[in-house]
Amino acid sequence: MSVNILFSAAQIRWVQYEATLRGLLDKSGIDYVLATELPPQEVDYIVYAPNSDVQDFTPFRRLKAVLNLWAGVEDVVGNPTLKVPLARMVDKEGLTQGMVEWVTGHVLRHHLGMDAHILGQDGEWRAGVPPLSAERPVCILGLGTLGMACARALRHLGFPVRGWSRTLKTMAGVDCSAGEDGLTKALDDAQIVVLLLPDTPATQNILNATTLARLAPGAFVINPGRGPLIDDAALLAALDSGQVAHATLDVFRTEPLPASDPFWGHPRVTVTPHIASETRVSSASAVIVENILRGEKGKPFVHLVDRAAGY
Amino acid sequence: MSVNILFSAAQIRWVQYEATLRGLLDKSGIDYVLATELPPQEVDYIVYAPNSDVQDFTPFRRLKAVLNLWAGVEDVVGNPTLKVPLARMVDKEGLTQGMVEWVTGHVLRHHLGMDAHILGQDGEWRAGVPPLSAERPVCILGLGTLGMACARALRHLGFPVRGWSRTLKTMAGVDCSAGEDGLTKALDDAQIVVLLLPDTPATQNILNATTLARLAPGAFVINPGRGPLIDDAALLAALDSGQVAHATLDVFRTEPLPASDPFWGHPRVTVTPHIASETRVSSASAVIVENILRGEKGKPFVHLVDRAAGY
Repeated sequence: MSVNILFSAAQIRWVQYEATLRGLLDKSGIDYVLATELPPQEVDYIVYAPNSDVQDFTPFRRLKAVLNLWAGVEDVVGNPTLKVPLARMVDKEGLTQGMVEWVTGHVLRHHLGMDAHILGQDGEWRAGVPPLSAERPVCILGLGTLGMACARALRHLGFPVRGWSRTLKTMAGVDCSAGEDGLTKALDDAQIVVLLLPDTPATQNILNATTLARLAPGAFVINPGRGPLIDDAALLAALDSGQVAHATLDVFRTEPLPASDPFWGHPRVTVTPHIASETRVSSASAVIVENILRGEKGKPFVHLVDRAAGY
Repeated sequence: MSVNILFSAAQIRWVQYEATLRGLLDKSGIDYVLATELPPQEVDYIVYAPNSDVQDFTPFRRLKAVLNLWAGVEDVVGNPTLKVPLARMVDKEGLTQGMVEWVTGHVLRHHLGMDAHILGQDGEWRAGVPPLSAERPVCILGLGTLGMACARALRHLGFPVRGWSRTLKTMAGVDCSAGEDGLTKALDDAQIVVLLLPDTPATQNILNATTLARLAPGAFVINPGRGPLIDDAALLAALDSGQVAHATLDVFRTEPLPASDPFWGHPRVTVTPHIASETRVSSASAVIVENILRGEKGKPFVHLVDRAAGY
C-alpha cells in the first residue's frame, strides 16, 4: 500500500515544490503518491500551509502527521480538529540562515548609522565614527533556533548579547534570562532589541509602553518575528518621543501591510515585506521527506509542535 | 636621562591622546617627557601623523623610531630623510574591529538589497527574497590584518570568500590567490568586491575597466581601503553601464571628497566620509607605548613598515 501525501498549500507552492519533493521521495525508495487532491480517508501525511483549504482535519481518518511548510504555526496549532502530530518547518539553511543574514544586516545598519549616508548624499563630508560593537548591547527576545543563531552571529561580531526566553536557556557568551524579572533585566539599557519570539497569548504586545521605556533612549527595534509581539500604538508613541530612534519591521498584524498604515509613512520606520526568513525549497523539502520517512519507520518525528505551549 | 617623545599630529589628536598616553607611560615606570614641541636633536620617538609639520627628519639626530598613529603610511614611507624604523598603527580593537563591522555591514546591505527598502517606503508590498549568502561570492583584494579579519567574518556568515594578495596567503575556508593570474581568478564572477589593499605603485588603479569587466554583471564595489586603488572614470563608466550595480566608497584620491565630485551625485554610489576604520584612542595609545617600551628594552619594534614594499 502506498504512502499517500496530500500537498495542501497555495498553487504557487506546488509549482515550486513538486519536482524537488518527488526527486527526494523517488530517491528514498518508498512507494508513494503525492498529489494536491486525494480522498481524505486515504491520506497519510499532509504537507501543509496554514492558509490552505484544509481547515477541518476530521475526515482525515488515517492521517499520521501534518507537516507544516512554514515555521509559524499559530493559525493551525489551536485547530481542535487536529489530533495528530504537527511538525513545524525548521529549515536551517533557508529559515535560519536567511534570518541570521537579515538580522545581522539590519543590526549593523542601525549600529553603523548607514541610513544617514544612504539618504544623505548631499556633498557634505561629515566625519565621526560610531562606537564599536562591544559598546552596543543587543537584546534578543526569543532563544529558539532562530534567536540562538542570531545571538551567535552577533556575538561573533563583538556585540554584547542578552537573550530572553520563556524557559531559561544557556548559551556561551550570551547573557540569558527568563520570566518577567528576566525580561526587565534583558531590556534594561539595551540599544537594539530583536524580536524572535513565537506568537502566543503570552508574548502578544510584549513590546509595549512599559517595556519600550526600559530600552536605552534612542534604541532601535527590529522585528522579524511576529507582528502581534508589538503594541503598535506604543511603538509609534516611542518613535515620536525619540525613545526609539528607528524601527525596522518585517512582520505585521495584517500582511501585506495596508498602504494606509502609519508605519509606511513614518520617517523612523522601515517596513520590509516579510522577507527576513523564507523557507527555501530544497532544504525545506528535505525536512518534509525526512519526517515522512521517520513516520514510516516508526521513528519519532522531528520539529514537533508543543501543542500546549502553542509553538 | 629621560625618554623624549614628540607628539607630531594635528592639535585635535593631542587633545584626544595626551591623557591616555600619559596614563600608560606613567604606569610603565619609564622616565619620559611627552610634548608637542621639543628640540629635534633631543627627540627619541615621534608619535606621528603623516600630515604633521614634521616632513624633514634630518635634524632628529638621536631618533629611534617614528610611530605612526594611522594604518596608512603612503605619505611618509617614501620620505628620503627618514632613516629610522617606521611603525604603522595596527590597532586590532579600533582599526580591525571597526573595519570588520563596516565591511560586514555594507556587504550585507548590498546582499540583502536594503536600499530598495530604505529608499522605497511607498506603501507597496514587494515580496521576494535575496539568495542566501552561500550563493553570493565575495572577493577581498588584500589579505593583510584587515582583509583577513573581514574574510573571516564574511566566511562565518556563509559567504564564499576569495582573497587576493601580492604574496600568496593561506587561510582556512578562503580561496586564496596571488599575482596577476590570481587576480583574474579572484575577480571572475564575484558579486561583491571589497578593496583592502595598501596604496602602492603596484596597486594603483587595480580596479579598472579590465578588472571591473571580470566581475559578475551587477556586482557591488566596496572600497574602505585607499582611494587610488580605483580608476574613478572606469568605475563611473561601469556604474553607468550597469556592470556595477552600486559602489560604496569610503576613501578617495582627495579627502574630504569635493562637493562637486560626480561620486556624490551618482544614484548608484554611496559616499561615506572615511569612517570605515578609525584608530581608537585607548587601543592605539597602548600600541604606541608598547613600541616605546620595546625600543627602550632593545626589543624589536612591532608593526614595522617594509620600506621597500611601501607598507
